[in-house]
Amino acid sequence: MNLTFLGTSSGAPTRQRNVSALAIQPEQGRDWVLVDCGEATQHQLLRTGLSPLKLRAILITHVHGDHCYGLPGLLASCQLNGRTEPLTLVGPQAVWAYLQAVIKHTEMRIEYPLEFVAVTASLQMSRGGFHVRAAPLSHRVECWGYRLEEAHVPVKLDTARLQSEGIPPSPLYGELLKKEQVQLAGGRVLNSRDYRVPAYPARAVVVGGDNDRPELLAGLCRGANALVHEATYTEAVLQKVGPEPQHSSALKVAEFAREAGVPALILTHFSPRYRKASRKPSDLSIEDVRREAAAGYAGQLYLAEDLETYTISREGRVDLRAP
Amino acid sequence: MNLTFLGTSSGAPTRQRNVSALAIQPEQGRDWVLVDCGEATQHQLLRTGLSPLKLRAILITHVHGDHCYGLPGLLASCQLNGRTEPLTLVGPQAVWAYLQAVIKHTEMRIEYPLEFVAVTASLQMSRGGFHVRAAPLSHRVECWGYRLEEAHVPVKLDTARLQSEGIPPSPLYGELLKKEQVQLAGGRVLNSRDYRVPAYPARAVVVGGDNDRPELLAGLCRGANALVHEATYTEAVLQKVGPEPQHSSALKVAEFAREAGVPALILTHFSPRYRKASRKPSDLSIEDVRREAAAGYAGQLYLAEDLETYTISREGRVDLRAP
Repeated sequence: MNLTFLGTSSGAPTRQRNVSALAIQPEQGRDWVLVDCGEATQHQLLRTGLSPLKLRAILITHVHGDHCYGLPGLLASCQLNGRTEPLTLVGPQAVWAYLQAVIKHTEMRIEYPLEFVAVTASLQMSRGGFHVRAAPLSHRVECWGYRLEEAHVPVKLDTARLQSEGIPPSPLYGELLKKEQVQLAGGRVLNSRDYRVPAYPARAVVVGGDNDRPELLAGLCRGANALVHEATYTEAVLQKVGPEPQHSSALKVAEFAREAGVPALILTHFSPRYRKASRKPSDLSIEDVRREAAAGYAGQLYLAEDLETYTISREGRVDLRAP
Repeated sequence: MNLTFLGTSSGAPTRQRNVSALAIQPEQGRDWVLVDCGEATQHQLLRTGLSPLKLRAILITHVHGDHCYGLPGLLASCQLNGRTEPLTLVGPQAVWAYLQAVIKHTEMRIEYPLEFVAVTASLQMSRGGFHVRAAPLSHRVECWGYRLEEAHVPVKLDTARLQSEGIPPSPLYGELLKKEQVQLAGGRVLNSRDYRVPAYPARAVVVGGDNDRPELLAGLCRGANALVHEATYTEAVLQKVGPEPQHSSALKVAEFAREAGVPALILTHFSPRYRKASRKPSDLSIEDVRREAAAGYAGQLYLAEDLETYTISREGRVDLRAP
């Protein structure tokens, strides 16, 4: 399972970071799902191996421009490139109103089926290899976090159960993976599904939108392998800016991730004031954000960069894939 | 006077070319004017020395997405970066309706004065060091071409006239450039403005939008140094595609430029099917476009690439600036 960050800046793009977009891909196949679609997301995709024609769903957290101004262009380019397969758009109703207005005013043509699903707390859908759920967050406009859990986990035999029932290894074990029922030599009939278990726990990631109350993601985070959350500011800058923009500090997110027991935390959506390479001693550095988060959280901590891909292994381990 | 191409692809971006946008800058100062604003224009600007805070006007040719989907993001980033100075947007009424809808639906905040001017054939405005005029073109939606002529040409003395009137060179020549009136030793009073002429003819460039009738630009092209026009297809591809998209072939534009006597022609807005480097013999090459145009036009011919800057010298010569 792969997470590819297409944009990691808040508000406006910089030379190093585009605005928000995150591609999530299951282990098998070329299908994928996009969370948020800031301006120039389609441009970033040209620098990856992800095909817009294999995109199955777009989940938008909220209607602010840095999370959705790339939507019209991406959808229009899908049309130009001959897409015919359906695409699902999920998000607040305002996102659909925005998109419909753009389509109308600019005579944009979309002939493939584009389905809109207004996000609610009871959302349950499966697209692109994932089961998707959502939870409302706290921001200046309606905003949501999404949980994507892999839908297709291979099964293996529950050999412990078979042996505890006195059924020793034999060619019959193989039949239990292929047939619905298998009859033992003594006449006993086994229902195969009773002896099948997932080969590994389904992997899940939670992706927050802009949000000043990370604890609202507690439900979605239960059992998840990783949380992706904005850390727009450090605590000191957040105090200076004030609560009005309704963003989180690195510390706040780290403390939530620790309390929720999330094993991996990937921070993103950084204010452009945090520079990668400090030019002057007074420059704020992205390392300030990292230090603050690390002080509050002892799990696997990452600060996302554009075009990085993180993998979640079958064992649930999150790693940055070598470029 | 500089023309910097921020996007040269039609319809959708490619790895090498973004969608339409062209920055035009007078010789003096840092002000500039933008013609069209496809998605990720603000991203391209990050790769140039042009400051969005010095942008004085945006002229939009038509409301199709590849010419205006970068507008909301650019305007929003101006706000985030503290712009307070006014900005003028010129274009078809549909562009304003599109922008107003985006502002409304996405809660976009613009606090600097944003003035909209609906383009008409009688447009006469001065912004960013240019006099701007417009002419209607022929496309699937309302579409316009713009002429930008430099507004501030330094003056020099009309020494030929002075000498023909028997006024020989003297320190008085210098006074004619500073004072309104100058009195000769014999008592005669000269009105200085009668002896001042432009140091060189005002430079002008004409930028067409999408258009299948280049001859509609004949009026604007009179006396212009350069024409920038779409050449979406070669003639052969245009015949195959058919007239419905209402684009021009390289040949059609070249023939118009020859007949109009435009000394320099810069082609842009190429279909992504024309590749810079052919991978297979069947690939169409951008060199096909060049050859077709060169066959019909003997002036200075350029095919624009992204981030190229063309200069127009005081003598009116158009050159590609060394990167």
